[in-house]
Amino acid sequence: MSDDLSRFSINQMTVRQLTLPELTAACRDLGVGSVGLWRAPVQEYGVEAAAKLVRDAGLRVTTLCRGGFLTATDPDARREALADNRRAVDEAATLGTDTLVLVSGGLPPGDKDLPAARERIADALAELAPYAEAHGVRLAIEALHPMYASDRCVVSTLAQALDLAERFPAHQVGVTVDTYHIWWDDRAPEQIARAGADGRIHSFQLADWTTPLPEGVLNGRGQLGDGSIDMREWRGYVEAAGYTGPIEVELFNEALWARDGREVLAETARRFVAHAF
Amino acid sequence: MSDDLSRFSINQMTVRQLTLPELTAACRDLGVGSVGLWRAPVQEYGVEAAAKLVRDAGLRVTTLCRGGFLTATDPDARREALADNRRAVDEAATLGTDTLVLVSGGLPPGDKDLPAARERIADALAELAPYAEAHGVRLAIEALHPMYASDRCVVSTLAQALDLAERFPAHQVGVTVDTYHIWWDDRAPEQIARAGADGRIHSFQLADWTTPLPEGVLNGRGQLGDGSIDMREWRGYVEAAGYTGPIEVELFNEALWARDGREVLAETARRFVAHAF
Repeated sequence: MSDDLSRFSINQMTVRQLTLPELTAACRDLGVGSVGLWRAPVQEYGVEAAAKLVRDAGLRVTTLCRGGFLTATDPDARREALADNRRAVDEAATLGTDTLVLVSGGLPPGDKDLPAARERIADALAELAPYAEAHGVRLAIEALHPMYASDRCVVSTLAQALDLAERFPAHQVGVTVDTYHIWWDDRAPEQIARAGADGRIHSFQLADWTTPLPEGVLNGRGQLGDGSIDMREWRGYVEAAGYTGPIEVELFNEALWARDGREVLAETARRFVAHAF
Repeated sequence: MSDDLSRFSINQMTVRQLTLPELTAACRDLGVGSVGLWRAPVQEYGVEAAAKLVRDAGLRVTTLCRGGFLTATDPDARREALADNRRAVDEAATLGTDTLVLVSGGLPPGDKDLPAARERIADALAELAPYAEAHGVRLAIEALHPMYASDRCVVSTLAQALDLAERFPAHQVGVTVDTYHIWWDDRAPEQIARAGADGRIHSFQLADWTTPLPEGVLNGRGQLGDGSIDMREWRGYVEAAGYTGPIEVELFNEALWARDGREVLAETARRFVAHAF
């Protein structure tokens, strides 16, 4: 593995066309030592089997994506969400990663109260954070771009994510810093410093911002270098804040998914070296 | 006109299927006393003729949309943008409105420097604001949703808009408060108070947030009541900040444009009364 790739981690979603065995083999061939995994494909393969596969391949699992969706008002839905998040913590521990990324959830149908939804996330974290700690897992609240505020994540800025995280010890709850979601925010650099000072940068992810956005705005994250975000600038902010951990590239992109997965992984590693280092 | 409609203004874009004469006739028939106009259809009709039409109909023109696009780095493009904005000021004055809404512009191709682009807007405002004042027109910087940061408007929050506006006297440069663009922002209420304290709320516009967003994310603004935004809450913020002016409804929505324009105008007026009052 080249030095420049030592901090590179490929998020499984970037090359979701690859099966887990194909992904681990491609990582070995390309000298990629770290992966971020997603629950659905891991469950499909079997959590224990996936854990053995990545362990045998010598891969580090940098994060498990994702827990969250903690904004339900219905008591049954809320109970089920908490139970599912405990299972996500268990899976993270089995996979050997210390970080579970949280996408907090949107507004319930017909609901217009963002502050109340954010408060329900805090209530849920109070139940989940000690459970996660007991299993050696840190929760990493991800601020999602404001365009997801109604239907996926009412936590829209790093400042909001930290307002939630700081109610808990840093080794229980921190944040995910993802360039795609925060690049437009002139307060984000100071919030990265705030997060780093407190040891709360639990994950750092890269994706570029490209337009036009596709319908539904989910699967248009740009390959590094294709868009408007200066990756080195953002790596500089997290490093100035004391973060020296892995850097995941997580792209949801229909055009990339339509290509050969090994080729996309190789390209992503090259782009990482060219644009983030 | 009912009391509840006395502050209602229909932005021309909401019913862009109507010609200007059709729009003024529909406003008369429905008891709508105010309109926000757009440059392209006004130019097509003729600026002087449009001014006479709305004047003869007894309509108040609450805003002209829009000036802006002030982020070019190329000197010729920059000069042309400034000249075009002076023409926009002239048109606003001819139409009898005191407010020109500004959509500031995105990043030039290949450029990744948001702070520098915002600074170029300030430089342009320094040239335009005195010209506008001399013509009795106030400039109203509109913060656009962060999903437009790269290609339409590098001013993504009300705080950023005010940081720009406050470099100039309030009677020269203020802001447009549009629910669609700022509803996700937990700092927006305090920024509305900041804007109001200084007399800088030059325009207040409503649109609802609905998902899924369409490709390109331009034409999916929801009819009032169809989405996640509590219109009364936001009217409360601007009124608490001292704003008592017109309230424009500005919807870019393919489904509304496909319908009969008079019917959409009538529905919009009803929704305004039902959801904003």
